[in-house]
Amino acid sequence: MSSLEIAATRKHAEWLDANDPLGEYRKRFLLPERVIYLDGNSLGALPRTTADRLREVVAQQWGERLIRGWDEGWLDQPLEVGARLGALLGAARGEVVIGDSTTVCFYKLASAALELRRGRRRIVTDVDNFPTDRYALEGIARARGAELEWLHCDRVAGPCLEDVAAVIGADTALVTFSHVSYRSASVADMAAINRMAHDAGALTLWDLSHSAGSVPVSLDEDGADLAVGCTYKYLNGGPGAPAYMYVSRELLEQIEQPIWGWLGRRDPFAMEHGYLPAGDIRRVLSGSPPVLALAAVEEGVTLVAEAGMERIHAKAMALTDFAIAVVDARLGQAGFSIASPRDRVRRGAHVAVAHQDARGLCAALIERDVIVDFRGPDLIRIGLSPLTTRFVDVWNAVDVLVTLAT
Amino acid sequence: MSSLEIAATRKHAEWLDANDPLGEYRKRFLLPERVIYLDGNSLGALPRTTADRLREVVAQQWGERLIRGWDEGWLDQPLEVGARLGALLGAARGEVVIGDSTTVCFYKLASAALELRRGRRRIVTDVDNFPTDRYALEGIARARGAELEWLHCDRVAGPCLEDVAAVIGADTALVTFSHVSYRSASVADMAAINRMAHDAGALTLWDLSHSAGSVPVSLDEDGADLAVGCTYKYLNGGPGAPAYMYVSRELLEQIEQPIWGWLGRRDPFAMEHGYLPAGDIRRVLSGSPPVLALAAVEEGVTLVAEAGMERIHAKAMALTDFAIAVVDARLGQAGFSIASPRDRVRRGAHVAVAHQDARGLCAALIERDVIVDFRGPDLIRIGLSPLTTRFVDVWNAVDVLVTLAT
Repeated sequence: MSSLEIAATRKHAEWLDANDPLGEYRKRFLLPERVIYLDGNSLGALPRTTADRLREVVAQQWGERLIRGWDEGWLDQPLEVGARLGALLGAARGEVVIGDSTTVCFYKLASAALELRRGRRRIVTDVDNFPTDRYALEGIARARGAELEWLHCDRVAGPCLEDVAAVIGADTALVTFSHVSYRSASVADMAAINRMAHDAGALTLWDLSHSAGSVPVSLDEDGADLAVGCTYKYLNGGPGAPAYMYVSRELLEQIEQPIWGWLGRRDPFAMEHGYLPAGDIRRVLSGSPPVLALAAVEEGVTLVAEAGMERIHAKAMALTDFAIAVVDARLGQAGFSIASPRDRVRRGAHVAVAHQDARGLCAALIERDVIVDFRGPDLIRIGLSPLTTRFVDVWNAVDVLVTLAT
Repeated sequence: MSSLEIAATRKHAEWLDANDPLGEYRKRFLLPERVIYLDGNSLGALPRTTADRLREVVAQQWGERLIRGWDEGWLDQPLEVGARLGALLGAARGEVVIGDSTTVCFYKLASAALELRRGRRRIVTDVDNFPTDRYALEGIARARGAELEWLHCDRVAGPCLEDVAAVIGADTALVTFSHVSYRSASVADMAAINRMAHDAGALTLWDLSHSAGSVPVSLDEDGADLAVGCTYKYLNGGPGAPAYMYVSRELLEQIEQPIWGWLGRRDPFAMEHGYLPAGDIRRVLSGSPPVLALAAVEEGVTLVAEAGMERIHAKAMALTDFAIAVVDARLGQAGFSIASPRDRVRRGAHVAVAHQDARGLCAALIERDVIVDFRGPDLIRIGLSPLTTRFVDVWNAVDVLVTLAT
């Protein structure tokens, strides 16, 4: 049976929820009543353990141990939480560290890539890449006299391999895309693009913000060079939570990022003269780690690890299949169309629905406590978080949309 | 009477505590029992309100409001908390914003200064400046082909005006010092150095990490161009709390920092193509603000504002006077010497005590729950936080040191 035949009923949604192996996880989060939250890909929900954990870190660690906390675990937190997160991304221990904001992490690694490929002047990305990545690249290009090559991709399918291949050349220093597009949820072919880049001697930098905790990521196996991502979406790290950086082991000893600071230096508390990068991935760090925020990130990562990426991905696909089926069946004739890949292999955990009045409809949905995102000019973005979203939530949300649109 | 005559007794310490107008503030913090904490200039103590505030932000804001929190205050937090903090630093509303780590903030503003003074190649600082500032400058100098001029200052008095004047010239782009030295607590003459720099057409960047919340700072009045500082020392913002940036209103429209990101862009959520810096101080921001950490910073700043900088500074001076008097009287003949300025006008809120076995003594003090900092090669650094440190704490700490040393 196609998903359309089996899926587009409330009864089926209830059946899917009743048979959901991750169904119990919703109780592990604090979620507001009367709200259908389909925006966990902007800000993930609050894990119940996080409030307790923060209370403990604040009262027992900061309050009681004070400065001694640095020697009692705080200093190693970026690596420890990074290692646990890295395990979800196919990265080995010591390849992932929690750092600054996603923008700052992206700036550091993109700059580092250009430094490693000094002499090459071109950076490849796409016009639909996430804004902060695009802006950071513009700034770097201007500062370094590099040149940006903007791919114009299909707005549903994302970067197509032929286009990427055509634009990568001997002068390409860096190829950088989002793994999962923040707009259409298209999944880039990471392994193939890494190969193309490497064949031309270029490096790759992946933004995993919309992949981590929702779809499989195999950084080591797929031959990625560098990656960054935020922790406040499917990883449920909290508003403005710190981001992470991945550096493949092959590059760990050579990489040099531009923001030299004490926490990235070898033997930081010697406070000696002259910067010497740390011997391990700490060299991409700069300032003091955000201890409170890191504890919240750890709680979110722990939940994802416990649920397991395989089950999470399976549910993400089931949720998106169901959402697509219901939108097709109930809104397909009313001016709505699916603007996300229909092929599971090429789809992340959200669904973009195009409509000419998407802006007004998003506002109306939010007013009715159905929280979605508007993405201009015409997309309603429905985020489906495998650990918190129910199939009936999807049904109910589309139900409200049907009322609004017909 | 000199401070030596009146001060070097336990009875006097008790009298000072009994007559301390800020004495009640200690109760506003959670402090561990049996510990004499003289390291609030590394990590300030936990305000009692912070735990409640964090609980509220986590449960009510993140948990209940979820993504809607961004429109309900989170986005303005960096400016709002920045404005409240700026009022303590002699800065107008709109000149201070809370950003990334101190290192990243310093990197941004130092880079921006060099950009504003393109064509000039020299950066002036001192060899005793805080390590992360020195490292960041080294990185910037290397990336931009700039040259660092390292002042060798008196280790007690800090940057001397004659030396600074001698080294600033027509090729100087940036003059940057810590306002209060992290080692000796010497206070730099901010107004005079700003004048010297400006006379030569250079810009100034101040690190206020050891001044904010302890000694008067008059950024606008003293003609500072740029400043950064951490919030986890006398501002009690918590471990790894985010730092702030000050940009004088004269530079606000011209300044361009290197880490272009969505939160620094005009109209960020339009997500449009092409970076355009925001029209106000938001242009020095890059990524998403750290919402949880910002709430903690606000609690700390609120306490300092309520106590008032005048009373705080008066107590800082009384505490350091007392510490110097007790060390002089009880340890002056035992190989200890004061390595901080004796002149109140030139002194911050900590006292450095030099001894050839400072390292061993610091370890022994900490083992006896007297928390101080070792600063190589020979300094015991005693931090005196006006809102939490009692005069008897100073007496008792020196008492332990006397037992250890004699």
